[in-house]
Amino acid sequence: MNHVVKAYECNWKGELSLSHVVGIMMLASRKQERGLAHPDLIYQKGLSWIVIQNQLTVNRLPKLEEEIIVETEPIGYNKFFTFRRYTILSQEEEVLVDALTTFSMINIKERKLISLDEEVLSEYPIENKKDNRRNPRVPKIDLDNASVQTYRVRLNDIDYNHHVNNAKYFDWVMDSLGMDFIKTHSLKSVLVKYDKEILPEATVKSFYEIRETGNGVQTLHQLESDDQKCCHLSLEWEVK
Amino acid sequence: MNHVVKAYECNWKGELSLSHVVGIMMLASRKQERGLAHPDLIYQKGLSWIVIQNQLTVNRLPKLEEEIIVETEPIGYNKFFTFRRYTILSQEEEVLVDALTTFSMINIKERKLISLDEEVLSEYPIENKKDNRRNPRVPKIDLDNASVQTYRVRLNDIDYNHHVNNAKYFDWVMDSLGMDFIKTHSLKSVLVKYDKEILPEATVKSFYEIRETGNGVQTLHQLESDDQKCCHLSLEWEVK
Repeated sequence: MNHVVKAYECNWKGELSLSHVVGIMMLASRKQERGLAHPDLIYQKGLSWIVIQNQLTVNRLPKLEEEIIVETEPIGYNKFFTFRRYTILSQEEEVLVDALTTFSMINIKERKLISLDEEVLSEYPIENKKDNRRNPRVPKIDLDNASVQTYRVRLNDIDYNHHVNNAKYFDWVMDSLGMDFIKTHSLKSVLVKYDKEILPEATVKSFYEIRETGNGVQTLHQLESDDQKCCHLSLEWEVK
Repeated sequence: MNHVVKAYECNWKGELSLSHVVGIMMLASRKQERGLAHPDLIYQKGLSWIVIQNQLTVNRLPKLEEEIIVETEPIGYNKFFTFRRYTILSQEEEVLVDALTTFSMINIKERKLISLDEEVLSEYPIENKKDNRRNPRVPKIDLDNASVQTYRVRLNDIDYNHHVNNAKYFDWVMDSLGMDFIKTHSLKSVLVKYDKEILPEATVKSFYEIRETGNGVQTLHQLESDDQKCCHLSLEWEVK
């Protein structure tokens, strides 16, 4: 899939924002899914894919008006998870962003995780790709030493599934860190684990901790709604 | 310009959000401007276009994954203003949204309105289109009877010009009205007057008043930052 980076997809530095990096990745796999023999089978069965975990490596964020190429392929599965790779390339085929996303399946009505439905799975071109990798653990934030910023969910944070689109979490994370931090640091990688959805009209606490490491800075984040953990993340940064 | 409506451009009802309607209109005119003989002349002179007022008529908001056609043309100018028409059409050439936008020019350094620069203006294909129309007045909100919702500007509200992108104002307006209101009303028209830019880290008060009218509902809005009026709007709605 080719895509031209639009003004409203960029942060104030004129780079594709992280929430849109993830949004565009999802577009690419949806587009691919629509080419399946029975793309709606999963919904007809009352099921849905959800993102459980995401690992991104950032070489450079795409720029305003840059034409990018977004590639994706399912790379494996086991009883509970499927793994999908996404690559965002420049026109010169330089890898800008590389991601490995873990999906699970839920029963939409009960909003509960289930083991993968074999019939749905068989629609995808990933036969014989049993994959027993373990999802990496997201480093734990030290809540006692963390700062916190509170967000009221806005109506435009809500998507067609009537919950906060989890790409929006990155907007809160970046906002928590603040303009000065974002100005002076370049994002190198992201590891995010989604624990629980966030519903309309919720108030979200965004905890964050900034740690100096040997070769840069690591920021750890936890989002909570109603005192329940919804998501935790770690980001690696290079000092500019 | 053709455009396919993407998931992250939609509200939770699966319609193109008003902030993205306006964002896509701006893309269409930027695209046209890049075709001018000297598209950067205005910036080389330290000047910039800004939107002063916008009038939108909504027949139907574009839907998720709908392919739309966005047309725009400058239609006239006078000493201080240029007027530009935008039309968003369906593939069947049904007019979905029609807009008339008033632009002025500012000196970027002083951030002050100036009379239109003749040299810049002569780049545009609008010779001999003197237009003495007056901008319609936006009906005044009754602040004594208004409700208010407070917003802290988030980092992702800020654009490349280092102020809140004024398309984002619509997200605050919709959020103020709330999910129940948006569920039960269809947007018919918007009239918005921009008074003053909103800067990073500001706190914004969004005042709103809901008035029943003979054939529907009118909502009036005023955004204030540091007790200064930044924008005021009126929206017309049909009860569903």
